[in-house]
Amino acid sequence: MPKAGHNGKLDKSAERGLVISIPRLFLYHRGCEDALRAGDRVLTSHELASRIGRGMSPTQIRKDLSYLGSFGRRGHGYDLVVLVKKLARVLGLDRDWRIAIVGFGNLGHALATFLEFREEKFHIAAIFEEDPSLIGTTWHGVTISDTNDLEIVLPGLSCAIAIIAVPASAAQAVAERLVSSGVGAILNFAPTNLALAPEVAVRTIDLASELSILTHHLA
Amino acid sequence: MPKAGHNGKLDKSAERGLVISIPRLFLYHRGCEDALRAGDRVLTSHELASRIGRGMSPTQIRKDLSYLGSFGRRGHGYDLVVLVKKLARVLGLDRDWRIAIVGFGNLGHALATFLEFREEKFHIAAIFEEDPSLIGTTWHGVTISDTNDLEIVLPGLSCAIAIIAVPASAAQAVAERLVSSGVGAILNFAPTNLALAPEVAVRTIDLASELSILTHHLA
Repeated sequence: MPKAGHNGKLDKSAERGLVISIPRLFLYHRGCEDALRAGDRVLTSHELASRIGRGMSPTQIRKDLSYLGSFGRRGHGYDLVVLVKKLARVLGLDRDWRIAIVGFGNLGHALATFLEFREEKFHIAAIFEEDPSLIGTTWHGVTISDTNDLEIVLPGLSCAIAIIAVPASAAQAVAERLVSSGVGAILNFAPTNLALAPEVAVRTIDLASELSILTHHLA
Repeated sequence: MPKAGHNGKLDKSAERGLVISIPRLFLYHRGCEDALRAGDRVLTSHELASRIGRGMSPTQIRKDLSYLGSFGRRGHGYDLVVLVKKLARVLGLDRDWRIAIVGFGNLGHALATFLEFREEKFHIAAIFEEDPSLIGTTWHGVTISDTNDLEIVLPGLSCAIAIIAVPASAAQAVAERLVSSGVGAILNFAPTNLALAPEVAVRTIDLASELSILTHHLA
């Protein structure tokens, strides 16, 4: 059975098994953290499945977690402290992340607020906007910079992650400038596909596309 | 080859082929609409692929569109007017949709603004919120109602789609109340899995989970 190495990285076969299960590992991490907060110290795969809700099977949980190592005695449940620590390391949630956000209209502003106040590991450290009435103002201690100055401002701010919340027509150019300023991962809300080097991680959330899945179902 | 029926519905084999391609059909629809606006009347699969951007192959486009019927002479490209109309019908984008939004904090407010002003087919027709300082105020002509009154207010408003932007702990109960008030499809931004009857279409967008995919990549 593939095992995680000592450095928290996974060997190749484990990595292959994991590719499709990162969102599930995230659910396990959240479920286990909730259980820890509720005072639990040990949790079975059945208990974790029922915490996560419908559609999650104990068998799937056991299979996914077996890739990460051993976290308890068979039949006695998982040691929650050890498991949460391990999941956090695999997910990269064992450290804080600084985020740059480009486009501070309604959506950008809402995403910043959501992340800053709901997700303790994520901190908005840079904001870029084109609107002259916003440039130079501050949002919770972060000065809003002119998007034109991105290459000057961003490299000093240690942001590995950026959120793009600009119109589709501007997104590709913004993405390229972010990458050349040191960003390695992008959460893209512009309704367009970004073409970037394969080592840059990109997730695109296209709200209109999500809605079209619903309207197709209703049609 | 499976063909669409006269009513715009697809026969069973075509429907099976389509299940995974709705997001792609949405991209084709957007690409074709852009081309129409730019003055084109005919478009080849290669031209559509290059409009959509990297990662989309002309072969995939031809295969997907073959399920929908015939839209031009082989080698001459697709008739854009006919194709856009057909794609819109399949996607349910040939009509207007009224949307209810529950939770009008930062995220709910931003989503409402985004949809109302960027997506012409989608209209915010009902808003529910628990905050007493918001209840009774209006947002672009829509009165913000008390979430407690959902069952009284919503049934008269013909909203087939709802957006949930409440905390995770409240989401399941809100979803059940929406469904019993006539909603058939839900776009869920609460970080939790919703357990609903299978005939209800649900898409969950979990921002923290999306971020964890990026942090896993960076870790």
